[in-house]
Amino acid sequence: MTKTIYIIGVGLIGGSIAKDIKKLNPEISIYGIDKNAAHLEEAESLGFIDKKATLEEVKEADMVIIAIPVDATVQLLPKVLDLVSDDTLVMESGSTKSQICKAVESHPKRRNFLATHPIAGTEFSGPKAAMEGLFKGKTNIICEVEKTAFKLQERALAIFQIMGMRIRYMSPEAHDKHIAYVSHLSHISSFMLGKTVIEKEKNERDIFDMAGSGFESTVRLAKSSPEMWTPIFKQNKENVIETLDEYIHNLTKFKEFMESDDFDEIYNEMKNTNHIKEILKGISLTR
Amino acid sequence: MTKTIYIIGVGLIGGSIAKDIKKLNPEISIYGIDKNAAHLEEAESLGFIDKKATLEEVKEADMVIIAIPVDATVQLLPKVLDLVSDDTLVMESGSTKSQICKAVESHPKRRNFLATHPIAGTEFSGPKAAMEGLFKGKTNIICEVEKTAFKLQERALAIFQIMGMRIRYMSPEAHDKHIAYVSHLSHISSFMLGKTVIEKEKNERDIFDMAGSGFESTVRLAKSSPEMWTPIFKQNKENVIETLDEYIHNLTKFKEFMESDDFDEIYNEMKNTNHIKEILKGISLTR
Repeated sequence: MTKTIYIIGVGLIGGSIAKDIKKLNPEISIYGIDKNAAHLEEAESLGFIDKKATLEEVKEADMVIIAIPVDATVQLLPKVLDLVSDDTLVMESGSTKSQICKAVESHPKRRNFLATHPIAGTEFSGPKAAMEGLFKGKTNIICEVEKTAFKLQERALAIFQIMGMRIRYMSPEAHDKHIAYVSHLSHISSFMLGKTVIEKEKNERDIFDMAGSGFESTVRLAKSSPEMWTPIFKQNKENVIETLDEYIHNLTKFKEFMESDDFDEIYNEMKNTNHIKEILKGISLTR
Repeated sequence: MTKTIYIIGVGLIGGSIAKDIKKLNPEISIYGIDKNAAHLEEAESLGFIDKKATLEEVKEADMVIIAIPVDATVQLLPKVLDLVSDDTLVMESGSTKSQICKAVESHPKRRNFLATHPIAGTEFSGPKAAMEGLFKGKTNIICEVEKTAFKLQERALAIFQIMGMRIRYMSPEAHDKHIAYVSHLSHISSFMLGKTVIEKEKNERDIFDMAGSGFESTVRLAKSSPEMWTPIFKQNKENVIETLDEYIHNLTKFKEFMESDDFDEIYNEMKNTNHIKEILKGISLTR
């Protein structure tokens, strides 16, 4: 039974997890830890943590959930494992998995740790961005499940189940490779689209007046937090560079078809990609 | 007074215009013309046109609205002007303006024509995609307004006003240059993102399971119609190639920063682009 949960990092992800647990399992006590004192105050006054805590107190926890940037996770996770009891489950929710798993592969308390990536979020960050139901129907990727104590796996699954998440098991390497395509590349494509348009349209009235909902949707991820995304790109460097190579190659080919007036190929490129409709429909149907 | 409107092309845009007019000005008779007989049937059974018509009948129109792909518009617009009465207003709603305006610059009935671009739409097409209120609060770019008879300008503005559109005046060249950045480039970036991911993830379960709402939003425009977009890219070739050059350049620089482990610059690139928040907020506030 989980009675006390310590959440390290009370931002969008940590806060949203806390809100779900508070709603669905109100008998659980939730303690918040954050190096940003103002965020911690905010989390308490928003009511999704019961009490502020410090790192040393995690020895009292049934469960610790780390939801901070992935570079900080690599630093902090071994220290948290040092501190917790033999019966504590420690999870983190980072968008990369290889370096995080590697950081604790030989830790004596490796069996207390479960690597997860709940695939949900918005372009906003901080405690105010936290929202109830963010994870409902979403996928949670669990890595190296076999390295976690069976009893603690069960404790984790019980929480994910009340949150309504679908579980998929994957190796850290496969996770990082695939997520580079379906998440990391989208962010870079969006950031660079925003940059290209801002650079050109120094007179902002022009963007302002002519941008429709298509631009708004494509550029949405360019609002994301650089504090969170810089360490993700750093940790997943090789995979992200590979996706960028392929994306730039495809854009360059598209441009060359235009330069040589080969609009039959331009048509084909788009027609073949329209197939994304069925894929996205599949996503929506199962969620 | 406008009593009869002929809409050529009863798809997403033509159909949505018809729906607004039917609702806001039910005394106007709306006739539909489409080379696709099935679409015309559909438009009639959906009830947003009162009657099917043929091209020759436009001589009876107070207003003709052409909402078909831009290559077809360049072909058809002079013929429509040949057919209409001296008192008919002819408008089109294409996403490019230079070649369309050029196609009728010396037409004896040039003063009967008004070039417009209502900036609204979805990634869907055809009569079923038509929706009421699509244009409410959206921008309509009008080009070369001074070349249209004053009385007919007024007739157009009366319709746009009941639809709730904001009007901006621009030259066809400025329109095509700016719209390449805020609309055409977004579509290519989205199509090529979709292509890159589909090519890699041949086993679709991987996309299916790991794709979150970020990917969905960034790739949304890749569902758009190639029949509509190929002629747009063809007509706006020079401007679109310029935006692609800059976009590819920015992506390549981002990749080079990653390759040289310059993550301070990666951070800066994203931080500077976050500024898009304020720009997009501006858009939402005024709409």
